[in-house]
Amino acid sequence: MQKVGIVGATGLVGETLLSLLLRHPEVELTLLTSDHAAGKNIGEVLPRFRELGIILQPVEIEQLQKCEVVFICKPHGASMDLVKELVPKGVKVIDSGADFRLKDPELFTKWYSKPHTASELLSLSVYGLPELHKEELKNATLVAVPGCYPTGVILAVAPLAKAGLIESDVLADCYSGISGAGRSYNPSVGNLFIDCYDDLRPYNVLRHRHTPEMEQELSMLAGRPIKVLFVPHLAPIERGILSTVYVKLKEKLSEGTLYELYNDFYKDAPFVRLISTLPSTKLVKETNYCEISLRTDGDWVVAMSAIDNLMKGAAGQAVECFNIMNSYYQGYGL
Amino acid sequence: MQKVGIVGATGLVGETLLSLLLRHPEVELTLLTSDHAAGKNIGEVLPRFRELGIILQPVEIEQLQKCEVVFICKPHGASMDLVKELVPKGVKVIDSGADFRLKDPELFTKWYSKPHTASELLSLSVYGLPELHKEELKNATLVAVPGCYPTGVILAVAPLAKAGLIESDVLADCYSGISGAGRSYNPSVGNLFIDCYDDLRPYNVLRHRHTPEMEQELSMLAGRPIKVLFVPHLAPIERGILSTVYVKLKEKLSEGTLYELYNDFYKDAPFVRLISTLPSTKLVKETNYCEISLRTDGDWVVAMSAIDNLMKGAAGQAVECFNIMNSYYQGYGL
Amino acid sequence: MQKVGIVGATGLVGETLLSLLLRHPEVELTLLTSDHAAGKNIGEVLPRFRELGIILQPVEIEQLQKCEVVFICKPHGASMDLVKELVPKGVKVIDSGADFRLKDPELFTKWYSKPHTASELLSLSVYGLPELHKEELKNATLVAVPGCYPTGVILAVAPLAKAGLIESDVLADCYSGISGAGRSYNPSVGNLFIDCYDDLRPYNVLRHRHTPEMEQELSMLAGRPIKVLFVPHLAPIERGILSTVYVKLKEKLSEGTLYELYNDFYKDAPFVRLISTLPSTKLVKETNYCEISLRTDGDWVVAMSAIDNLMKGAAGQAVECFNIMNSYYQGYGL
Amino acid sequence: MQKVGIVGATGLVGETLLSLLLRHPEVELTLLTSDHAAGKNIGEVLPRFRELGIILQPVEIEQLQKCEVVFICKPHGASMDLVKELVPKGVKVIDSGADFRLKDPELFTKWYSKPHTASELLSLSVYGLPELHKEELKNATLVAVPGCYPTGVILAVAPLAKAGLIESDVLADCYSGISGAGRSYNPSVGNLFIDCYDDLRPYNVLRHRHTPEMEQELSMLAGRPIKVLFVPHLAPIERGILSTVYVKLKEKLSEGTLYELYNDFYKDAPFVRLISTLPSTKLVKETNYCEISLRTDGDWVVAMSAIDNLMKGAAGQAVECFNIMNSYYQGYGL
Repeated sequence: MQKVGIVGATGLVGETLLSLLLRHPEVELTLLTSDHAAGKNIGEVLPRFRELGIILQPVEIEQLQKCEVVFICKPHGASMDLVKELVPKGVKVIDSGADFRLKDPELFTKWYSKPHTASELLSLSVYGLPELHKEELKNATLVAVPGCYPTGVILAVAPLAKAGLIESDVLADCYSGISGAGRSYNPSVGNLFIDCYDDLRPYNVLRHRHTPEMEQELSMLAGRPIKVLFVPHLAPIERGILSTVYVKLKEKLSEGTLYELYNDFYKDAPFVRLISTLPSTKLVKETNYCEISLRTDGDWVVAMSAIDNLMKGAAGQAVECFNIMNSYYQGYGL
Repeated sequence: MQKVGIVGATGLVGETLLSLLLRHPEVELTLLTSDHAAGKNIGEVLPRFRELGIILQPVEIEQLQKCEVVFICKPHGASMDLVKELVPKGVKVIDSGADFRLKDPELFTKWYSKPHTASELLSLSVYGLPELHKEELKNATLVAVPGCYPTGVILAVAPLAKAGLIESDVLADCYSGISGAGRSYNPSVGNLFIDCYDDLRPYNVLRHRHTPEMEQELSMLAGRPIKVLFVPHLAPIERGILSTVYVKLKEKLSEGTLYELYNDFYKDAPFVRLISTLPSTKLVKETNYCEISLRTDGDWVVAMSAIDNLMKGAAGQAVECFNIMNSYYQGYGL
Repeated sequence: MQKVGIVGATGLVGETLLSLLLRHPEVELTLLTSDHAAGKNIGEVLPRFRELGIILQPVEIEQLQKCEVVFICKPHGASMDLVKELVPKGVKVIDSGADFRLKDPELFTKWYSKPHTASELLSLSVYGLPELHKEELKNATLVAVPGCYPTGVILAVAPLAKAGLIESDVLADCYSGISGAGRSYNPSVGNLFIDCYDDLRPYNVLRHRHTPEMEQELSMLAGRPIKVLFVPHLAPIERGILSTVYVKLKEKLSEGTLYELYNDFYKDAPFVRLISTLPSTKLVKETNYCEISLRTDGDWVVAMSAIDNLMKGAAGQAVECFNIMNSYYQGYGL
Repeated sequence: MQKVGIVGATGLVGETLLSLLLRHPEVELTLLTSDHAAGKNIGEVLPRFRELGIILQPVEIEQLQKCEVVFICKPHGASMDLVKELVPKGVKVIDSGADFRLKDPELFTKWYSKPHTASELLSLSVYGLPELHKEELKNATLVAVPGCYPTGVILAVAPLAKAGLIESDVLADCYSGISGAGRSYNPSVGNLFIDCYDDLRPYNVLRHRHTPEMEQELSMLAGRPIKVLFVPHLAPIERGILSTVYVKLKEKLSEGTLYELYNDFYKDAPFVRLISTLPSTKLVKETNYCEISLRTDGDWVVAMSAIDNLMKGAAGQAVECFNIMNSYYQGYGL
């Protein structure tokens, strides 16, 4: 049993995380914070929780230090200073934001346009993708949960990177549901229903901040720099990311051989499912699964994955990391 | 040929109006204003118009006074002061807002929580529902285009009101697409995609500001006060209002008899279609039609209507009024 | 622990029921049937269940007789003959279809255009709305789970009927998501994506087969015949029914008084929630709750309810009945 | 003025074509056929045309031979035999199906699994993409309108192919709205609302029948075989195709240089718009435009295009071809 706090409990990730932790048998929720709704009953902001009777709190370091584990669900830049006050005091942190994902603080500054104020803690941080870092997660005190897109893209091609099969670059074409943008309480034109409905559009083409995460992890697996060309798009669904990743192989391999490679790579990964049919966001909706399918033509592989961006792409994966850190059953709450 | 200006050309109604007037053979667009985008090329705000090359202007009375007709597409309260400067100078105004719809200025104050600053012009104003006020529109200098909901509800039961058949109250149950809320450039949580998607919900139950318009027009037709219980709802479609209106009749009448009554009432109304099948918002989308269907059970009538809220419910009806005022073909631009 | 079978496990109701029973602590699933997919692994038809490894069976009476409880999820007319073979043999049946909802077999024939072939069992049948029939459910051997629309409409106005407050007729205006039509394996034009998307439309106006159920139950509560004018509509959402029900009262009562009346009526109903805000299908999605809100104007009451049509409107309510019949915790599986 | 017939007027393409031809100033519609609805008034099948009063006809060669131009809107395989009866008699044919798109009849047989029964006419056929074949279209008697996906993909990279810049393969990642599947009157599970809603999924990965068209046209432009890896996906919108096409160049070029290349290539193409912002299906909905945007990283180009699949991707392009064949203004009806 762990005393757990959530910083940012009323955003989309926080809300999903809360619903998962409420059904987790080893969690005692002791603190929920919200910047804009501190002092209110959570049911006023999120009616589905109206029977909980929990009052939202402001962020106060002293209160957070009383938790054993703190989940942070805030935009990038918000957790650096918090983590500095918590981890050294023995509070474990699972951060859904971007602050501790990139090992190189200059890369952080380049992509996020701000200096990193806690770079001394980067070496402690474990990138929270259990399929790649399970052993490190067991003893982690600071976990950086991957971004939603990197989860889908890295899982789609990690076995190829690890096997040294990628000839040159990785082309990652992804479509995300609208919840990927979060629920801002200061919304802007562009996420309105009438803007998104009936529309498909790319955005931040080749310039999205999730690119360096993908490159860091795939390069680490391959043992050499891997360049990722990443093109994200928006689609009018609520939840889900479909990733279609194109990789040219160093040698032509059959689909059967590739499936064997993947099966072996993911043999201890309970939340990756290799499927012979094609993936679909609907089939993984509200689950923590990443479903992956492969097709080949000549020396090209098309690796496709589907995840729920709020589950395996955010809150679900955070809980999965929490379970591994505490040696719980990996599926608790999921 | 008329020199025409649009005040508020970049809102949803203004945008729709602009697309209609661009294909109108008797319109010369001389002025488009926008509060938040004055000085910009309209293509920057509304890409579909990027080839027009028109620069958006601020609202300046002197410039507006050079138009022959000004369409105003602004929220309630914004046109009162403008109209005072234009109509006395001989500029005709077609106002899509609420300021000149209610004949009784106290009713305006009660429902809109502000005093009416141009109540002396209310007697000039014609309620722009051509099916009821065609003759007055021919000579109108100030037209108050009806609200979207009142258009659908009034047309659904006007023949019953006129024939003195309504026993007591009118129950108007309406569902609107999300565009009914307009495109605010200062949006609030509630119109976000993730809030509206996959949701049906009532709002402003029995308290919506369109209620007194319905009561004014139906009472005028009936020659006695008619009370309307109006329950609006939101549905996740882009455009369209479906109205299901329940009326208890003073006497039991067959569907055949009622259709005859309606056919007679609407015999000179080119944009009302009585249909024997049931209406659907999709079938009137992007048209100026109001499709109406009737069903009975005992002495109850269920009158159903479908309109496109941005066309017959706003911009289309404004153009229809413009055509009637100028003795043009009633369907120009539509 | 009960040995349970599902007849029709691959329809939308059957699929939902299966997912609920899989997490029910007192259920041993022993038999799943499917007419069109007998012999196949359920994962071929419903990929989300691919890890179950269950083979779908044809409907065979002998096999069904080995179950303790059989849930039937088939269109109307399909369960009459099955029930005759099961209930007399001591197998309890929970039927999601219409065959045993109406106490009067002639009413069944009138609305469903076929004779009732098991009318001798109608007196055994309990209408499975726990809020009205909890005591009878405890000893039931045959349960007729209410239709989706009747659940929402009856719960919205039952306290008024019981209190003798309804002056004359009940006007029930309902919008349902598309899943209400089920998943036919012989689909027809009309439920295609391109037909439903972006559309609102009424159907079966004043002639829908759920009308007599509503009248039966409300009349029973009121102790006199209550007529219901029922107008169903389709809206492009996946799940959910929003019901807006108009009732004229014999006397004018305040909203506060009415909420008290409802609170008292539903004090032992764990799945009805009276809310002061307005209901929304999204807030009850994938739950077994019925959320109800009330508004008044003069002697009219507008009672609004929201349910998930596959949960409280079908499979969830079936499980709720199962729990009551077996004296389990009423929320198991839900 | 041309006497025009439409074979297959009640499918989605036929319906769209009809609406365009109705507003075309040089078209006299003389014959509309429908297999499943011959003898019915078109308004019974497509209510929006209920005021036309046209009776649908069966397909009869003699009647079709009285037309000057026949548009065929049927699935592949259906036009081969018709065309043999019409073109030799001097009737011009504009075929929206696949039968005359591929110059090599063996390729047709390979991809469509049936022999080509009119291969002697293939040399007459002009591939109806005006941006590539305008001159040939002027004298064409048989036009094969491109598939929806090939239109978007070919236009996105044609200038690169023509300039000899493509190093090796073309990767075409496309998402289509549901109308791409047509409106079958014998629908199958998979296009139901509940199947498509809230879902993103690939289909026919690397095996879609539109692949050889793309390869034929791009190879012709490049003067050498170009291989296309084509991955189509379905998204829950009504209309529109967004294509994201990845091409490795033989040399690194700036975005500015590439835009110049494209501007030059498309200088006489009124329906291609090069935009500096990113494309969106919503912005081209119900228009005949193809909007294209380019981004580069190293020697990779990402070329993105958006079209309305029923307009530029089918019926709109058919009308555009018709206009060119008859030396009309290219935008008539569009």
